[in-house]
Amino acid sequence: MTEFELVAALTERLPTNDFVVVGAGDDCAVLELGSPDTQTLFKTDAVVEGIHFTPETEPALIGHKALARCLSDIAAMGGTPTAGLVTIALPDHFESARITELYSGLNRLAVRHQVAVVGGETTSNPERLLISVTVLGTVPRGRAILRSGAKIGEAIFVTGELGGSRAGKHLDFEPRLAEGRWLAQTGFVTAMMDISDGLAGDLPHLLAASGGLGAEILATALPISRAARERARESDLAPSARVAALTDGEDFELLLTVAPGRSVALLDGWKSQFPSVNLTCIGKVTAGPGVWLRTEDGVRPLTLKGYQHFA
Amino acid sequence: MTEFELVAALTERLPTNDFVVVGAGDDCAVLELGSPDTQTLFKTDAVVEGIHFTPETEPALIGHKALARCLSDIAAMGGTPTAGLVTIALPDHFESARITELYSGLNRLAVRHQVAVVGGETTSNPERLLISVTVLGTVPRGRAILRSGAKIGEAIFVTGELGGSRAGKHLDFEPRLAEGRWLAQTGFVTAMMDISDGLAGDLPHLLAASGGLGAEILATALPISRAARERARESDLAPSARVAALTDGEDFELLLTVAPGRSVALLDGWKSQFPSVNLTCIGKVTAGPGVWLRTEDGVRPLTLKGYQHFA
Repeated sequence: MTEFELVAALTERLPTNDFVVVGAGDDCAVLELGSPDTQTLFKTDAVVEGIHFTPETEPALIGHKALARCLSDIAAMGGTPTAGLVTIALPDHFESARITELYSGLNRLAVRHQVAVVGGETTSNPERLLISVTVLGTVPRGRAILRSGAKIGEAIFVTGELGGSRAGKHLDFEPRLAEGRWLAQTGFVTAMMDISDGLAGDLPHLLAASGGLGAEILATALPISRAARERARESDLAPSARVAALTDGEDFELLLTVAPGRSVALLDGWKSQFPSVNLTCIGKVTAGPGVWLRTEDGVRPLTLKGYQHFA
Repeated sequence: MTEFELVAALTERLPTNDFVVVGAGDDCAVLELGSPDTQTLFKTDAVVEGIHFTPETEPALIGHKALARCLSDIAAMGGTPTAGLVTIALPDHFESARITELYSGLNRLAVRHQVAVVGGETTSNPERLLISVTVLGTVPRGRAILRSGAKIGEAIFVTGELGGSRAGKHLDFEPRLAEGRWLAQTGFVTAMMDISDGLAGDLPHLLAASGGLGAEILATALPISRAARERARESDLAPSARVAALTDGEDFELLLTVAPGRSVALLDGWKSQFPSVNLTCIGKVTAGPGVWLRTEDGVRPLTLKGYQHFA
């Protein structure tokens, strides 16, 4: 059973109540907690030694990554993070200095984005370090950007560059919070999510949430990272840079769809707001089913699976 | 370094912001998220195989316990839980049926207390099962009962009975949500927390949060559970029932202090509301320092440590 299959089974009939606007299945849950102007975003994520980082990873980067992954999900809703809780499960014979450094990295990122760390839990996990972070965020009422809003004919965009994150970016990426908020407030973005499992793995989730649509991706338009290009050049065993851009995990870029006729205005506004970050149109939403890749050789189904953390 | 020492070091200088009313150190954090009438409670807790349950524990009880621990903290603030997120870290070769059962136990408790489960995360932890739960709650504005409100001369009460939880109660206890809400709305309760590490371990936390006060506990007043009494009778190696009531972990009862002159009215109201649950006065708050135990043989310092999950 894969992670997706198990999650699908477990989230089929979850308890709900009147506080819930959006439950399981989007980047964050959206809740109504009584504020007249805002709704609350709610997200949790965990990183595990040997899976998301190694025993040799610089501790401050572990802490950074643990929080940044949650903040990326807040960004993908167009929200602003407010407060977080940190659970740390410590292996036997841990070094206190390592844990203190881990918290320093996490706290630095929290301060940079004005996130309060309001507690958490310390427990034991004898064989390996595990950090679980939960973040609350806020979003103007009714303005959270969900995965489910894409429509046929809309343009598909990504921020930044894709692929090669394992060369380092997966540990020190800056969550696209300002970008996500700006994109949401344009009113042009119909659906959005962050890319954690590779474009080829995550785009189908957005299309499925939007009612079972398809997409055509233009291979030559993909913004491929320098790290993915270098890795492809250096080793015959490495995937091509294009495959890496489609399938490498942990890009933590934003994937979004844009209402018809709004792409040029969106790009113009973006360039003046974020001159050093790419925003790239990579294709369009189709009636589907399936994701198709248009290359120099024609159009073929995109069968590459995204990165699965969970083997 | 013990759990408490590490947590103290890590929580010394946490990032904060204007959303925070109460940060780390109480049963829950208290946040201002824009509602005119209510404040938000925020709590996380984790249970780990081999520590909080065994490989043989009935899976539904693992799920129940994982959520119930968080709900007990919401109860200790006088709050109402609204929504939760569940992270499950799965060992290698897990059985899907076991995980499904675990969720069933968790979901049944959630439904009983109208808690929405709005998602979570599935990841891998090769050697052992770990479940981390985060819960949001709501409390009328300014009415959360903190640990820090106790004053000299006030009476100390506990709900239910203490000790012997390991015989089973630690897995199937019902969080004292109705009781905590009722206690808070009386206006008579000045400080409250739940007892997770034993009375002797947790009372000092409440007294420390209240400005470094002390307490005198009347040994003969302690409400000792049948499980603690039976265990003491059955084995010469077991602690006395009284020591068990003071030091056994995971009672998940409420510990509270009551404003002067209000104890009789509180007990009268309690008996009509909760006729089948004990509410017992076990002592009083003193100028301190330290917790003293009054027994048949006189008064002596209570040096027994509470249960430490973290060896």
